[in-house]
Amino acid sequence: MIKLSYNPEKGNSFIKEFKDPLFLLVLSYTETAENDGITVAGADKSLLKYTPPADAEFIEYGYCKSIDAIPATPDGKPTPALLTRVALRIADIPMLVIDGGSKIKPSMPYLDISSTYAKNIVKEDALKIDDVKRIYENSILLGRKLGKISKYIVIGESIPAGTTTALALLMAMGIDARFKVSSSMPNNPHNLKLDIVEKAMKRSGIELGSLRDKPLDAVSHIGDAMMITVAGLSIGASNSKILLAGGTQMCAILALIKVLNHNTLDNIVIGTTKYIVDDKDSNIISLVKEIADVPIISIDLGLERSQHDGLRAYTRGFVKEGAGAGGACIASLLKSNYSNNKLLNNIDEEYLLTIKRQRS
Amino acid sequence: MIKLSYNPEKGNSFIKEFKDPLFLLVLSYTETAENDGITVAGADKSLLKYTPPADAEFIEYGYCKSIDAIPATPDGKPTPALLTRVALRIADIPMLVIDGGSKIKPSMPYLDISSTYAKNIVKEDALKIDDVKRIYENSILLGRKLGKISKYIVIGESIPAGTTTALALLMAMGIDARFKVSSSMPNNPHNLKLDIVEKAMKRSGIELGSLRDKPLDAVSHIGDAMMITVAGLSIGASNSKILLAGGTQMCAILALIKVLNHNTLDNIVIGTTKYIVDDKDSNIISLVKEIADVPIISIDLGLERSQHDGLRAYTRGFVKEGAGAGGACIASLLKSNYSNNKLLNNIDEEYLLTIKRQRS
Repeated sequence: MIKLSYNPEKGNSFIKEFKDPLFLLVLSYTETAENDGITVAGADKSLLKYTPPADAEFIEYGYCKSIDAIPATPDGKPTPALLTRVALRIADIPMLVIDGGSKIKPSMPYLDISSTYAKNIVKEDALKIDDVKRIYENSILLGRKLGKISKYIVIGESIPAGTTTALALLMAMGIDARFKVSSSMPNNPHNLKLDIVEKAMKRSGIELGSLRDKPLDAVSHIGDAMMITVAGLSIGASNSKILLAGGTQMCAILALIKVLNHNTLDNIVIGTTKYIVDDKDSNIISLVKEIADVPIISIDLGLERSQHDGLRAYTRGFVKEGAGAGGACIASLLKSNYSNNKLLNNIDEEYLLTIKRQRS
Repeated sequence: MIKLSYNPEKGNSFIKEFKDPLFLLVLSYTETAENDGITVAGADKSLLKYTPPADAEFIEYGYCKSIDAIPATPDGKPTPALLTRVALRIADIPMLVIDGGSKIKPSMPYLDISSTYAKNIVKEDALKIDDVKRIYENSILLGRKLGKISKYIVIGESIPAGTTTALALLMAMGIDARFKVSSSMPNNPHNLKLDIVEKAMKRSGIELGSLRDKPLDAVSHIGDAMMITVAGLSIGASNSKILLAGGTQMCAILALIKVLNHNTLDNIVIGTTKYIVDDKDSNIISLVKEIADVPIISIDLGLERSQHDGLRAYTRGFVKEGAGAGGACIASLLKSNYSNNKLLNNIDEEYLLTIKRQRS
């Protein structure tokens, strides 16, 4: 069930129009993910860098080429890429993968924008300013091209620890996002994230809002390449309708766009899962409200009715969102007019297929 | 003026329908180009490998990022990428660049399909068979995606010495293409090409037609990555209308598609310049005839009326075609309904601008 969770009027006119989209998945990496306890994406720390390409490969092929297993939490809750795969498949939505700073390149066709992965913001600047500028320019150029071939674009992302760098970026831009960004774990490690962000801000001499007018500098000091890639793509394709498929990370992107190219915000909505919007441990609506009148559209996937505990876990605060899952499911239903139940049944079937593929 | 040069009936119904295309430029390289006297693409031998990325950059930006000068013959006849740039710009046709085995990667966004450049076929196999298979599979996958977002696709290429590997491939596939492939020079070095091809065939134990049923093996032994990339893209996107933008090299691609996926030929035309079709030193019509009923559409750019000798040289047998110029100009006029004169005036202006950009 698709719900208009914020700015419903504008959201409603958006979804009435949104038909036959192109799905973009931006892969990225930040070494910030290697701080202890920060993320459960990827089964162990040395595998973290494989999560983004593995997500892309899983969506494309139904299995991963870069690593053997599918990206999952250590106890086997599946990657949200599973939802994305089903959503795109049933509505025949094409996906293009963009390397927005992945450490490991995906084993499938992808768009190269000369990006680079981000460093651990506790220890050093995330990206050189020249890298940020190049990534930004290339993303705008690419967005302009893609906007010419598709009037409707969904942009998802896969980056481990992305909510931590999102928190850092938002603080630098003057949005007090403490305790508001979400997590892929039920016990959101807010204090750990804050500790990292405070260290990063101190290291780079940033205070709340001190880089309000310098978004590229903010990305360079304490952001990641994913956020500037998605911002650039959105700005380049701003004649198209853009559905940012993701949770609180997308707020960092709104904050960037607001300064970099304000008018682009008129063509953007955020599409995510109910598990993000209803999360008691984060607050996407409050974050978006503080930045812009951008609608939030959410989808109730009904995963509590799934046959598989790994998927039911999403309703207990695990995973929640990622790899553009929520937005892809929204776009899928808008294009296909399938019912929620049909989507859920297909997700359940894909789960079984995935387990079979893994065993064989 | 657009002319139906072969299979006019089918060509006519194709161009009536062909409207709002996506332009793909496939960049590639073969060390076969480093044999003495084989090509004039690139001002000297050490620069040959820069020609493909430079073509792409020139079309995108109006100048080259990878090298200082624009790709040109040693005496300054401009790259056909200049025509492509103007054609795409005036009709607002988006270009995506695909790395189909370039040695130097373009300094701009491009699609990575895990390709690799080809070796000198005189000395060794062009590509490992596993590489050929991977490139082919990735190209099909990418073509399928692009076919979903665009019903009309133009595919051009930039590879130095591509007519030599095309000749080799055609021979292996049983098409006696001797003295029929074109050249970027007025005195087509047929004997030199033949000498290279005969050495390559001898080295790999290939006789005329001996790999007729093994197109991937033929590419591996004596082809290049461009041809299998364009074949794969065409097969993947075979629900779209495809205009292969190039000269006699495109015949190698037709020969591959004919065996790999015969039905794809129904949706293909070749689009090129009058300078190729009317060339006395090569014979594209005879080549196509021998392979399939694929229409040839050509454009008379009227370059003899250009203000610049470098462009008038095209009518004296220099350059003739490349970087998808002929097909891009055809697609441009079909989309924009501009007159030939307007196209020519824009080409002349771009030539002046280019010289100014280079001097500044």
